[in-house]
Amino acid sequence: MNAGSGRKLYADSLSLLTDLYQLTMAYGYWKSDMAHREAIFCHSFRSLPFKGGYAVACGMGSLAEYLQSFSFDPSDLAYLETLEGSDGARLFDSGFLDFLASSHLQCQVDAVPEGTVVFPHEPIIRVQGPIWQAQILETAILNIVNFQTLIASKAARICDAANGDPVLEFGLRRAHGIDGGLAASRAAYVGGCAGTSNVLAGKLFGIPVRGTHAHSWVMSFDSELSAFEAYADALPNNCVFLVDTYNTIEGVHNAVRVGHTLRERGAQMLGIRLDSGDLAYLSIEARRILDTAGFADTIIFASNDLDEQIIESLKKQGATIAAWGVGTKLVTGHPDGALGGVYKVTAIEHDGIWHHRIKLSEQVAKISTPGKLQVRRYRVNDGYVADCVVDLLNPPEDAQCTMVDPIDHTRRRQFSTADPYDELLRPLFVKDDVAESVGNIEKARTRVREDLDALHPSIKRITYPHEYPVGLERELHNCKTRLILDARGAGDE
Amino acid sequence: MNAGSGRKLYADSLSLLTDLYQLTMAYGYWKSDMAHREAIFCHSFRSLPFKGGYAVACGMGSLAEYLQSFSFDPSDLAYLETLEGSDGARLFDSGFLDFLASSHLQCQVDAVPEGTVVFPHEPIIRVQGPIWQAQILETAILNIVNFQTLIASKAARICDAANGDPVLEFGLRRAHGIDGGLAASRAAYVGGCAGTSNVLAGKLFGIPVRGTHAHSWVMSFDSELSAFEAYADALPNNCVFLVDTYNTIEGVHNAVRVGHTLRERGAQMLGIRLDSGDLAYLSIEARRILDTAGFADTIIFASNDLDEQIIESLKKQGATIAAWGVGTKLVTGHPDGALGGVYKVTAIEHDGIWHHRIKLSEQVAKISTPGKLQVRRYRVNDGYVADCVVDLLNPPEDAQCTMVDPIDHTRRRQFSTADPYDELLRPLFVKDDVAESVGNIEKARTRVREDLDALHPSIKRITYPHEYPVGLERELHNCKTRLILDARGAGDE
Repeated sequence: MNAGSGRKLYADSLSLLTDLYQLTMAYGYWKSDMAHREAIFCHSFRSLPFKGGYAVACGMGSLAEYLQSFSFDPSDLAYLETLEGSDGARLFDSGFLDFLASSHLQCQVDAVPEGTVVFPHEPIIRVQGPIWQAQILETAILNIVNFQTLIASKAARICDAANGDPVLEFGLRRAHGIDGGLAASRAAYVGGCAGTSNVLAGKLFGIPVRGTHAHSWVMSFDSELSAFEAYADALPNNCVFLVDTYNTIEGVHNAVRVGHTLRERGAQMLGIRLDSGDLAYLSIEARRILDTAGFADTIIFASNDLDEQIIESLKKQGATIAAWGVGTKLVTGHPDGALGGVYKVTAIEHDGIWHHRIKLSEQVAKISTPGKLQVRRYRVNDGYVADCVVDLLNPPEDAQCTMVDPIDHTRRRQFSTADPYDELLRPLFVKDDVAESVGNIEKARTRVREDLDALHPSIKRITYPHEYPVGLERELHNCKTRLILDARGAGDE
Repeated sequence: MNAGSGRKLYADSLSLLTDLYQLTMAYGYWKSDMAHREAIFCHSFRSLPFKGGYAVACGMGSLAEYLQSFSFDPSDLAYLETLEGSDGARLFDSGFLDFLASSHLQCQVDAVPEGTVVFPHEPIIRVQGPIWQAQILETAILNIVNFQTLIASKAARICDAANGDPVLEFGLRRAHGIDGGLAASRAAYVGGCAGTSNVLAGKLFGIPVRGTHAHSWVMSFDSELSAFEAYADALPNNCVFLVDTYNTIEGVHNAVRVGHTLRERGAQMLGIRLDSGDLAYLSIEARRILDTAGFADTIIFASNDLDEQIIESLKKQGATIAAWGVGTKLVTGHPDGALGGVYKVTAIEHDGIWHHRIKLSEQVAKISTPGKLQVRRYRVNDGYVADCVVDLLNPPEDAQCTMVDPIDHTRRRQFSTADPYDELLRPLFVKDDVAESVGNIEKARTRVREDLDALHPSIKRITYPHEYPVGLERELHNCKTRLILDARGAGDE
């Protein structure tokens, strides 16, 4: 993926970053002369991660770069040529490989801007284009956006619990491989983290990088004091001492000793870091020692298996921690580990007419919503009050808009023309062109803060949040109901 | 990382794939004239993933490629030059950047061969070299090996539950970014999966790829039957029909109809796939329909949020599923999400003498083991019976070896010279050179099977497994005890 810096992380073509069945289906469409039929697919998710009240859409910038570089290179085609079916014959005709080689990405991709706060059952990405292409993109869209949305959402929750204190992402060593680490650093920064330990993420994405020393540094010297002294000599302008290698309280006293030396030399001790033990108790004791010694400006960092619940609890206990290093639980999206985003075909064109499509399920929440979907986010003053999904193939009359609850269709809400709204899905990729601000992670980061400010506090509660209303516009609801009844052979409503 | 095919996935230098504190410590060693002091670090983990009885070491091939390409390129140095300390001055002297630019990786890395079954509290990687280099490698080693070991272990458990049935890895859409998907496919194959849906993993690593069609294919046609017919026309040698888009039992009947057509044309219906509903009930019904219609050779695939527990349960219920597609829970290592591997300095050279190092902790299991560690895996006939960690700086006399339990030091076990053992850690990277079989994932895959065959079945049990014995050789145990007592100021034992 091309980085914000214009550097390219991946050397190889990523067009084969897809499931084989996307290619066998593409081949099937090509063989059936259906490849150029237009289709619309929508990406949405069915439940919020972390039992939270919101999610933060992320990964759109990375996706745009993927789309811009999409093309099958000779090595891709040479590989596909080697694939065999059950009879040992080639899986794909050479005519199809020529077709792939000469193809150009013709899809239009609309998405919510990166950093937008989003909810279940509304489209966050819409793809329209030749069915075989829109189908092939499924895997990469889900791979890139599901993961970054999961991590940006986790980061936003953790930053919310930290209540304005800086949160640093330290997770590379426990992340899921190289890009699992890089993508996590990117998404964590969008979600609100102040920086990362991941130097390559700093280089590629322009994220601030932070770090000082580990226990091993202290263990390399004869004493903790000499370790702190040597560190202060080498890096007087980056002094955060890790004080818990042997005995935390003694470590704080050693830090104070070196803090005085730094001060004499015109430098300052920025902080100390606690990485084990009872962080509430130790931070209060450490704060007392630092303040008594005249180091009221020296802040206390904490790390060690933190997440939003632990940070919230430490705050309640009066911990004097002013900066937080969060690793494993942030970059792995613990405990969920995945956002269950899905990508469903919602309409297919045939002879110039759009046909709506749904996927049935025994569970009503798993039935897809048909149409060319858009989301209207209604505002009252500066607060968001509801998201209404509309079908652009059959848009509501402007005079009014009735929103139907997707689970209980008797719960309805009326909006008038006077009610202001924003349309969430905007062009991300149109004819090779990517909108200017796409991939600007600083803008995405700002959008997260603005969107969270526009949500009622009850929706942002870490546990048992209030549910934000998302519904279907009445005409769309009726269309979906008719399709379900038809498919189940139950006739009209 | 260079792929098995010799293709290079990453365009950019990965030498900055590290935590900033590794570089600030390297800088500190350089400024303190300690950079060339030799150090030994060991990578181990403290508890088994998934409450299982074993783990499968994985990622060594990927790590070897990382080590071979390790060098700071001009763009890395240009980036490091931009970093600033708290006073706005540069963090790193240009002399240090010159030092990085001219440095060559001088570490020797020993590791257990990829695919080896491993246990807590034993080293799986040992790095010896200049302290600043051995330190910098920490993050990449943990990033690459923690994750792939997690996934290979999960795959081995799932394959064990499937009891010989092929297991296909289908997780790319829920994996943690691009490399999170590629590394997961690689590790899942090493751990025992028969193939992947991930086409790029197939291209880069030579893993068999599998896939046929999705629900969206069926939804693109006027009827399920016409969708199956069109698919069979296009790909007669790759026919596995997904039968649950509308009604599963009706779907099986439609598959049978197309199966007859295929047969008339000299092709065959390989299988059907179930992706929702009660898989035990539906597979039994589907099997009956297929057998009655003369399709006893057509196998039943299942997918839908599977893991080792669900597969074990379906087997017990008499499900007639013969192949398994596993996605999210495999590639995210659910529910753990991370292997808590750590990398600790265990000895440091000073004036030609090695000094042992330990990291203290209140919890005995978290105290590191000092020395230049090696693992002796004792065998009785073809079965593994115990792993004894020895210190090559202070090796046991050959005449005998007493193994001490790391938690309860009164539990001991005696081995004689007649007892055969293998030494697990072998050279992975020595002076730029990588052993020939490193990175051969077929060999790693074979090793997993052989190692699992050598474990007692009770250790492989999916729930509540027996604990495999790992201990410290007596001299090493005594050395560790002395160091702990010294550090705690408690004098000699």
